Order: sequence, then C-alpha cells, then structure tokens
Amino acid sequence: MAGEFDLIARYFRPLAGPEGLGLADDAACLTVPDGHELVVTKDLIVEGVHFVGDEPAADIAWKALAVNLSDLAAKGANPTHYFVGLSLPKGAPEAWIADFAAGLKACQEPFGIQLAGGDTTASTGGVTLSITAMGTVPSGGMIRRGGAQVGDDVYVSGTLGDAALGVKMVQGRLDASEGLVRRYRKPTPRVALGQALRGVASACADVSDGLLADLGHICAASAVGARVDQSSLPLSEAVAALVGQDSELWPSVYAGGDDYELVFTASASNAGALERIAVDCGVQLTRIGVVEQGGGCHLVDSSGNLVQSGQQGYQHF
Amino acid sequence: MAGEFDLIARYFRPLAGPEGLGLADDAACLTVPDGHELVVTKDLIVEGVHFVGDEPAADIAWKALAVNLSDLAAKGANPTHYFVGLSLPKGAPEAWIADFAAGLKACQEPFGIQLAGGDTTASTGGVTLSITAMGTVPSGGMIRRGGAQVGDDVYVSGTLGDAALGVKMVQGRLDASEGLVRRYRKPTPRVALGQALRGVASACADVSDGLLADLGHICAASAVGARVDQSSLPLSEAVAALVGQDSELWPSVYAGGDDYELVFTASASNAGALERIAVDCGVQLTRIGVVEQGGGCHLVDSSGNLVQSGQQGYQHF
Repeated sequence: MAGEFDLIARYFRPLAGPEGLGLADDAACLTVPDGHELVVTKDLIVEGVHFVGDEPAADIAWKALAVNLSDLAAKGANPTHYFVGLSLPKGAPEAWIADFAAGLKACQEPFGIQLAGGDTTASTGGVTLSITAMGTVPSGGMIRRGGAQVGDDVYVSGTLGDAALGVKMVQGRLDASEGLVRRYRKPTPRVALGQALRGVASACADVSDGLLADLGHICAASAVGARVDQSSLPLSEAVAALVGQDSELWPSVYAGGDDYELVFTASASNAGALERIAVDCGVQLTRIGVVEQGGGCHLVDSSGNLVQSGQQGYQHF
Repeated sequence: MAGEFDLIARYFRPLAGPEGLGLADDAACLTVPDGHELVVTKDLIVEGVHFVGDEPAADIAWKALAVNLSDLAAKGANPTHYFVGLSLPKGAPEAWIADFAAGLKACQEPFGIQLAGGDTTASTGGVTLSITAMGTVPSGGMIRRGGAQVGDDVYVSGTLGDAALGVKMVQGRLDASEGLVRRYRKPTPRVALGQALRGVASACADVSDGLLADLGHICAASAVGARVDQSSLPLSEAVAALVGQDSELWPSVYAGGDDYELVFTASASNAGALERIAVDCGVQLTRIGVVEQGGGCHLVDSSGNLVQSGQQGYQHF
C-alpha cells in the first residue's frame, strides 16, 4: 500500500477546503464570520461497538459524518468544516480507504461541509473513527437543550423506529426491508430543518439514543417534564406494518435510537411557522406531546395509561 | 462502575469551561474574538501504537493533550478549548478514568486551555484517544509551514534526542535515566514560545516525527532546502553523554521524534528579537542551520560531509 502521506494526498486532499491548507500543515486555520459563534461536536465511532466491520467502507464513512451533522442540525448550526481521525489496522487494503473517502465525499457534498484536517494512525484492534464537526450560528442563536417551557408542544421530524428495526434486520432477527436497513446504515441528518428551527424551537436534540432518552435529556436540561402520546408517533408504512403484526416491537419506535430525526419543543404560537418550515424543508413534522411541569418524560397510550417513562439511552459502561 | 453520564459529570465536567455547557448538550458553542482566526488540530492516540498501555493513565492523558498543544504552539496559537474522545475497554476501572482526568487537569491548567466537549464509548480493543484542540491567532497571524525563505536561519528550541532515548529506556534497551523517560512520557509543549514567534518566525513545525522529518516538511511546504550542522544540535547533558559513549545513538537526536520542541526558520535580522524571546520564555534557542535553494534538508558533519538527508518521519502504513 502507498505510504501515509501519499494516501492523504490521494484520497483526502480532494475533500478539503482552502482552510485545510492542503492537509499539509499541523493545523487548520478557520475564520468565523463577525456576529457568529462556532458550534462544535465530536463523536467516536468504534468497530464492534457502532458498526460490525463488514459494512461497505463508504457506508461507515457516511454514517460517521452524518451523526456529527445531526448533532449540528440539532443546534441549528450551518455546517462548515470537519476533521477526521482514522485509526486503521495495518493490513487494511487501499481500496477500503478509497471507498471510505468516497463515502465522506458523498455525505459532505449535499450538506455543504468540507474536510479541514485530521490524523491517520495504525490501530492494534479494528477501525476507530473520530470526527469533529463544526458549524456556525448567529451569535446567541444556537438552539440548546435547556430552553423547553411548560406548555410548549413537542414535535418530532420524519418517522421513528426505522433504524432500530433496520438493526434487527441486519442482525437477522427480522426479515430484511431495504428501506429500513438503509435508514440505519445511511441516516439523513436534518441539517436544513435544524437551521430553520432557529428562533422557532425552544429546545432541540437529535434522536440518536432513542426518542424518550433524547427528549428526557431536553427535560432534564430544561427542568421540565413531557407527556408523549404513543398514538401520535409518526411511523413509516414498513414500521407500522411490523408493529401492527408484533406489538413487542414498539420499544424500537420510542426507545430504539439511531433515527437521527430531530425532537424539539416549540410554543403553540409557532404552529403556523412550523407548518411552513415542514413544507420548505420537505420534512414531515408531527406534534407528539406537550411539555409539563415535573421531571422526566412519559409515554402514554390512547387511554392515558403510562407505557414507558423516559430513561437514559444506551450507556457504554 | 458508575454509568457513562455519571462518570462524565464526576470527572470531566470539572475540567470544562462555560462554553462546554456543562458537557450536557450535543455540542459546544465557542466565540472567536473579532479580528482573530481559529486554529484547529486533531490527533489520535492509540494503545499499542502510541503508548504501551501500562503507563499511568495520568501520563497518557498528559501526553495526549500535550501533543495537541504542541501543534497549536507550532502555529503560534493561544490555546483555548479542547475536545476529548475516549474509547475504553468495558472492564476499565473507574480509578483509571479518575487518574486520566487528573492528567488532563494537570496539563490544561498551566497552558490555559479548557475542556469543551467530547464523547466516551466502549472499545473492543485497547484505549483509543482522540483530542481536538483549538486556539486563536490574530487574523493572518498563524505561522505556517510554507513561509521559509532562502537565507533564513534555522533554529530549534530546547534539546533534541531526549525523548527518543527515553523510549529506548522504557523498552529496556538502555539504562534508565528518569529525566529522559520523563521527557518522553510528559513532554512540555512550547506554548508561550510559539506565540512569541508570531511575526518573527517565517515557518515553524513541532518536532514530533524527528528533526529532519519535521524540518523536511517545512522545506517541502516552502519549496526550499535546508542545511543543518550536526555539531550545533543542542543536547542535554544526559544525551551528550550517551552519544559520546555510542555514536550509533546519533539518529535518535536528529531523527528520533517525540521531543515536541519547535523547529523554525527566521530572517537573520530577527536574531536579536530571538535572543529576547529566549530569555522571556525561559527556553534555549539554538541556531542549527540555514535555508538554502533546492529541495530536502541535509545534515552535515563539521567537515561539511553529508550525514543524513531529511526523510519523511514515522509512517503508520
């Protein structure tokens, strides 16, 4: 295989914007426009933990960048730059790296973000990926987790449970549906929606750990509670059919995670604005509940009985 | 062991500045002062590649942060924030995390940098660490690799070869000297010096891959060559004694890496300014060569005979 410096030049330099200085310096130099702040997020993606390892490298790259873009979307940020740390087994074929870079390219282009730097190293185990992504917001404009107010409505974008049921399909525990597996492997971060929600949403998070967990984070940070109506949760046709056949699959919808939709709160006075945003962004927005006094978030059925209380999502330790 | 969220609250939140939002949001929100740019660097540190694994966790943390601070120093940046990604085997004891956080604290305080976010995940192999560090420079003030001019002098800070011989000691290939092992395990990034070199150095890099490799990067980026006099290379007493006994150890001095000194070029007219900077920063600065036309950097002995030509440093693949 070509040397480290050749690989960087061949596969990663074409992904870099001018701030990356050709990926030939020790650091990148970024300008933040006057009147703007920088929003920064960082995620580690580990083989055997976040992915199996036999996925196409392009899909691994897409997902690694997409989950960071999703964090930026939840903050209302306009994505600008990202940095990649790639730790790779010594025997990794050059074709893997080429495919990986192609996946980054496919994901960066529609969302207007460019590579600005990074680091490549050998690994003694599997692949570990670290992405740091940055975006800008007008100063003071970042949507936080802590802004939900009692009486606000709770909304979620798109549909829920697709990715969690897609995982079961990848694991052979359900018959495969291409659409759901794709939702799991190549999630679409809600970048345009997140920016449109600045000044409209009072709090926002992306659904990475699961709806109740992520809404629970909003409740905890905002010192409020939330009630979510199970019957209002937006389902794709495929997921609706599956939970219709087997109600044991319902937790995949409200606690499954990996959908990378946005869950957010907004004052009822913004309902009209949200209808327009849904049309402009081409994304379904569904009102699923309300913000209440008290802690935690509670999922209730159509009779008002508690189905599940919010709990922390996946914990690594 | 406590859960992931508890561990973050207990050990990492105390390291965070206000921009980290209590490490409870999806992202950090940073302000870059008007008239300044943001300098960003990222390094991955992998168990079994960059460290053995049986080092004290505090030393691993120190080095991981220090090498990023060294990259910022080489660019003349004032360090402000860093992000940590930590991938950890499931059985890792909480005491390891506590010690790791203590090492970060010890390193962040003298250099005025604060934690702003990150990610913790399980690993299936050993520990992998990813640090992204940021600093600011006045707009246009970043020292680049590509600014060396023919006729400039070449300088290096501190002494060379300590860390590379420290590695041999850790490996049991040389009798141990506490000072050299410490230089390898707990390098001191030249943060104040780097900032003082803004507007004085024409190009700069930190000595991570080895003097000739890192100066070679400057030469390549600047489209110049360099001649370095072996007899002028600054040595600690311990290293001078070792290479005096065994001249086979000389490559550790000029090609060994891990010293995290700064190698830089400057116009001869800045010699006086550099003398004052050395005093102000309390760092020895040594003129070790000159920038010439032509490519590559060449180490010559006192008779002018070529000892070694610059080559690329450690390559991971």
